[in-house]
Amino acid sequence: MSEELGLTIKKKEDFWKWYLEVIKKAEVVDIRFKTKGFDVYMPTAVRTIREIDNLFIAELESSGHKPLMFPNIIPESNLITEEKHIKGFGTEVFWITHAGKNKLDERLALRPTSETAMYPLYSIWLRSHLQLPMKFYQQGRVYRYETKMTRPLIRPREFRWFEAHNAFKSKQEALEQVKEDMEIFRKIVEKACCIPFILIKKPEWDKFPGADDTYAFQTITPDGKTLQIGTTHDLGQRFAKAFNIKYTDKDGKKKYVYQTCFGPGISRILGAIIAIHGDDKGLILPPAIAPVQIVIVPIYTAQVNAVVMKKAGELLGSLAEKGFRVDLDDRLQYTPGYKFHEWELKGVPIRIEIGPRDIEKGEVTIVRRDFLERITVPEDKLQEQLLEIMDSIGFQLLKRAREYLTIEDAKNIDEIKEIMKKGGFARIDFCGNEKCAEKIEKQTGAEVCGTLFGKQEKIKARCAICNKKAVEKVYIAITY
Amino acid sequence: MSEELGLTIKKKEDFWKWYLEVIKKAEVVDIRFKTKGFDVYMPTAVRTIREIDNLFIAELESSGHKPLMFPNIIPESNLITEEKHIKGFGTEVFWITHAGKNKLDERLALRPTSETAMYPLYSIWLRSHLQLPMKFYQQGRVYRYETKMTRPLIRPREFRWFEAHNAFKSKQEALEQVKEDMEIFRKIVEKACCIPFILIKKPEWDKFPGADDTYAFQTITPDGKTLQIGTTHDLGQRFAKAFNIKYTDKDGKKKYVYQTCFGPGISRILGAIIAIHGDDKGLILPPAIAPVQIVIVPIYTAQVNAVVMKKAGELLGSLAEKGFRVDLDDRLQYTPGYKFHEWELKGVPIRIEIGPRDIEKGEVTIVRRDFLERITVPEDKLQEQLLEIMDSIGFQLLKRAREYLTIEDAKNIDEIKEIMKKGGFARIDFCGNEKCAEKIEKQTGAEVCGTLFGKQEKIKARCAICNKKAVEKVYIAITY
Repeated sequence: MSEELGLTIKKKEDFWKWYLEVIKKAEVVDIRFKTKGFDVYMPTAVRTIREIDNLFIAELESSGHKPLMFPNIIPESNLITEEKHIKGFGTEVFWITHAGKNKLDERLALRPTSETAMYPLYSIWLRSHLQLPMKFYQQGRVYRYETKMTRPLIRPREFRWFEAHNAFKSKQEALEQVKEDMEIFRKIVEKACCIPFILIKKPEWDKFPGADDTYAFQTITPDGKTLQIGTTHDLGQRFAKAFNIKYTDKDGKKKYVYQTCFGPGISRILGAIIAIHGDDKGLILPPAIAPVQIVIVPIYTAQVNAVVMKKAGELLGSLAEKGFRVDLDDRLQYTPGYKFHEWELKGVPIRIEIGPRDIEKGEVTIVRRDFLERITVPEDKLQEQLLEIMDSIGFQLLKRAREYLTIEDAKNIDEIKEIMKKGGFARIDFCGNEKCAEKIEKQTGAEVCGTLFGKQEKIKARCAICNKKAVEKVYIAITY
Repeated sequence: MSEELGLTIKKKEDFWKWYLEVIKKAEVVDIRFKTKGFDVYMPTAVRTIREIDNLFIAELESSGHKPLMFPNIIPESNLITEEKHIKGFGTEVFWITHAGKNKLDERLALRPTSETAMYPLYSIWLRSHLQLPMKFYQQGRVYRYETKMTRPLIRPREFRWFEAHNAFKSKQEALEQVKEDMEIFRKIVEKACCIPFILIKKPEWDKFPGADDTYAFQTITPDGKTLQIGTTHDLGQRFAKAFNIKYTDKDGKKKYVYQTCFGPGISRILGAIIAIHGDDKGLILPPAIAPVQIVIVPIYTAQVNAVVMKKAGELLGSLAEKGFRVDLDDRLQYTPGYKFHEWELKGVPIRIEIGPRDIEKGEVTIVRRDFLERITVPEDKLQEQLLEIMDSIGFQLLKRAREYLTIEDAKNIDEIKEIMKKGGFARIDFCGNEKCAEKIEKQTGAEVCGTLFGKQEKIKARCAICNKKAVEKVYIAITY
């Protein structure tokens, strides 16, 4: 569909304009759907998401989660059952009020998250301690009426995610689950998608509505802002009590469960992949989640067409058989040069060029997308080389991405301001008071994201803002 | 979650009660979500659907369809663009009118189908004849406010489907697409899911709103009714004109496209699989789409536990490596007998029992789910035998299913009535007049479904109802 393949905007010059151009030209998202904040996912997005989804499904299932699929709607009476929850989400909910010409007896919400859809059934399903831990997940879409400026994939009104909802006997087990979620996230988002993150425990005033504690997976995009790409909530027993989720324990007593929910944001993870890895030629997709890992481009003149095509076909077959996701671009109406540009734009990690000279020498030419380096490889070493190059691309992408995720200590508001100009996290000693957080936001535009999960950081001084007793180190960044 | 595994209702005695019991106990669907017609898909359903989805994705992509993902909502102004379309769907649409406390400027429909969401973008995307045929598909959920009695999977208000939307230069190519859709359906629904069907061209008065012609894939369930499990619509140029979908042809002229859309109903296909193949022990899942094809149940006493578990683990590993979807039931708290019942209830096609005596003899015991036959196989013939048995189960399931899909000729209303008592299709010579169809429905409760696609059937007599000139043979059945 895109007729001009070249990007006209440099990433360093105007990051957001570059982002919008690349998602359009690389067929990721079309933002011309009539209703604001509702993205149309194009083939590159759907196929990449499929790979990411498969990794989450595999990890969630191998850690004992079973799949469910709840409706996209929630009746109002469910949604308002937990008081803090509806207070938090009330302003963000799309309401279905009519069907055909009839007014519905009860309004239905497009689900903003599924606790209140799922937990009434958890209450029916759970009877005995033998069923615990109870671990379920679903993949799907959720809806939030964002009033801030919407951004494709990053802040849409309809987005894709996974949500895992677990129930345990003890708070301790719930906290272990947060660690498991972090490990799953590390395997997929950091190792496969090459997106580094830190896991932040959110401050009291910024928790998920109804949760005891909220943990957020946060990365940094090239404009220096932090993007929350997933969360895990320690729900404690609040929902269990609101929805009556109890089990009969060994001692015969009925007890409420402790719950957690884990929500990897697939739309945002894809947004981060595009924003962080892409360059002035287009996308760069990490090999582990690229729908096409290798594209073969045959190079020929009219005379040697058949010979080259036969060899290209053989390569396609043998690489596919070995488990590579490989494609052969045999379109006749385009030149090799055009094809090179198109596949670079679409971020395919490795290109194989095969021409008559390569065939004569028993070689193939490989171009890696990150450095656009061209090397020649003997055919019998091809598989080995491809695996090595894929590893190396993954390594390089993560290394480059880590350059954005900076953490710098600050001692006062002015230093925070300076750090915010460059982007990334500022870290300060902090008193824990919301007033100080408000002061930071007012004066620097940045938010107190929270403390680092799972690590007691040494406090060296008093609160950088009010000079009172510091109780924690907090991370500060400009948020979306 | 189900504590009692046995079904209490016989399929032959009360089909619908049996269906409701089996979907509950086999963890397919929970119907206790508060809003009527919105099913909760349980693990067995989600995993089975995943297998069916993968087959559709593979077939659609290999026939040149690219994936898209449109929003679940459609703005009202889009939905009403094509007059016949909104006339047909108007009474079935759920309307979103508010977000938070705000009334929306424009109402949003939960999509009942996606033509009016997608085609405004088709109009932007399509420019040149070089882009034709343009073939896209998406998988997702759609919503219809059914006023008839809802039934889980069969007639819900939220259901899963695929929809492929294609654009062509000519009517001829559009009709070729209907054939391709039928072939895709045959490969997946008949061969893999073992559900036989006929493809019916719907009569004038029962077409998809806005289509030139509608073709419906129809099977027969054990209660003798016909279930429509997919459709293909020849949209002609009506939507192209309403949404301005034009291309510049070779001759430089702007021309409207011809369109088709193909909608396999995944929820209903799953419903048909359960309804048609299941028996008084529970589900029987066809091997090609069973999420677990083989379950290994170790049988041991305390003394030989380690030996048996080691062997069972080896078997699991070697079968998984060969590409079987295999599970090992190593739960200690259940007896082998309990496990047998549970896996029979859940429809796993093949069970392998392995005990100390089998190990001594170098054998394994295999039980096939359809006949519940137990055979002993030498371990070195296991893989070969498993493949054969899987084939045989597929063959038997389709054969049994075909027994429901009967077609019997009738010469008058009374004969139609007699056939309807037994179930299946009645076939008559027909004048083509809606009045006669209404008469049939009034007197027999059955509907004129339409004519057979792609086959000119010989008309032997005059219309069986009015005795006027017959122009076609039509198929009649009781519908859901």
